[in-house]
Amino acid sequence: MAAGAGRLIAFEGGEGSGKSTQAKALAETLGAELTREPGGTPLGERLRRLLLDEPSAIDPRAELMMMLAARAQHLAEVIEPALAAGRHVVVDRFAGSTLAYQGYGRGLPLAEVKSACLLASGGRQADLNVLLDLPVSAGSLRRGLKERDRIEAAGPEFHDRVRQGFLAEAEADPVHWCVLDGSLPADEVAAAVRRVVAARLGLSLARGD
Amino acid sequence: MAAGAGRLIAFEGGEGSGKSTQAKALAETLGAELTREPGGTPLGERLRRLLLDEPSAIDPRAELMMMLAARAQHLAEVIEPALAAGRHVVVDRFAGSTLAYQGYGRGLPLAEVKSACLLASGGRQADLNVLLDLPVSAGSLRRGLKERDRIEAAGPEFHDRVRQGFLAEAEADPVHWCVLDGSLPADEVAAAVRRVVAARLGLSLARGD
Repeated sequence: MAAGAGRLIAFEGGEGSGKSTQAKALAETLGAELTREPGGTPLGERLRRLLLDEPSAIDPRAELMMMLAARAQHLAEVIEPALAAGRHVVVDRFAGSTLAYQGYGRGLPLAEVKSACLLASGGRQADLNVLLDLPVSAGSLRRGLKERDRIEAAGPEFHDRVRQGFLAEAEADPVHWCVLDGSLPADEVAAAVRRVVAARLGLSLARGD
Repeated sequence: MAAGAGRLIAFEGGEGSGKSTQAKALAETLGAELTREPGGTPLGERLRRLLLDEPSAIDPRAELMMMLAARAQHLAEVIEPALAAGRHVVVDRFAGSTLAYQGYGRGLPLAEVKSACLLASGGRQADLNVLLDLPVSAGSLRRGLKERDRIEAAGPEFHDRVRQGFLAEAEADPVHWCVLDGSLPADEVAAAVRRVVAARLGLSLARGD
């Protein structure tokens, strides 16, 4: 990859793992575009509301396809233009979440979910996936009584399958994944994120540790 | 397939081809469930409005995934329960339209579009696809000045790729497709539809010809 080319860094993890906080901190450090999925575009945010607030049951395959629709639009409108302009992009959830939630969590066939992910993204994958791992009970406790959306409200067995799915994906592809302990204090996690991003992607950070 | 099992019959074709009229007529003849895509469920109709009325550009891959999301929900809520109960289902557009519009029309890779269609539908395919073929200019003329949605408003080259795509799919799989001349008067087309449905699916129709 050419020096100065934009890199795509995805934060992944379950509820209460600190993803959003860490994504924001890294984006500030890198001067990167910060965005999130599902969402990130006007169409994507409308899909996000359908996905998360819809009171009636959504079929798992429909849920998968709506996630992928939001991703395709997000790539076309936001991520690819930023990367092409040489900006780094930090995204709060990307393809790893699709595999973990719709594949491992909902039980859709993994190989087919991966193929559909690649079709939706035109082959684009994150240069680095940062998994903030945390036991489901700890994430749930940390999240407290905040209102849960349709997917967050699925039971603990679902969320444990999601966690194990993230860990399995990270173990299978250590070049593109790193696993950090999401139970540590936020500033320690932030320092670990900066170290791993510097080491893996060779980025010089404004605040090296 | 067990005698008495419900069959899925899809009407396919371009604008002004008479699909909706013929689907309605056949559903009445068969006493079948009549439905349409994208749509057919509350979630699907919300996706349909996003797909067809969205003023801003929708990425072709996002368009594909939204069509597939509507299909997955439609199958889960409407089509599969009806078929399982032994009812026939007549649908105005199904997977053939996805291949023709998003594959041939938008230029997304066909093999991958087919795989994604099968994932979205859990492997369900139409027992018979009835293609009402018509030159694009004739369909456009017949449709007249009615307001066009975002996909209908694409140019004539797009709609000609769609037409050629439908014809290519029908030619490649003559067991599951039949091509009828959509330029004939509606009652002649309806008679041809009844004949082909009786012959191909062995259904005894209330009004045989």
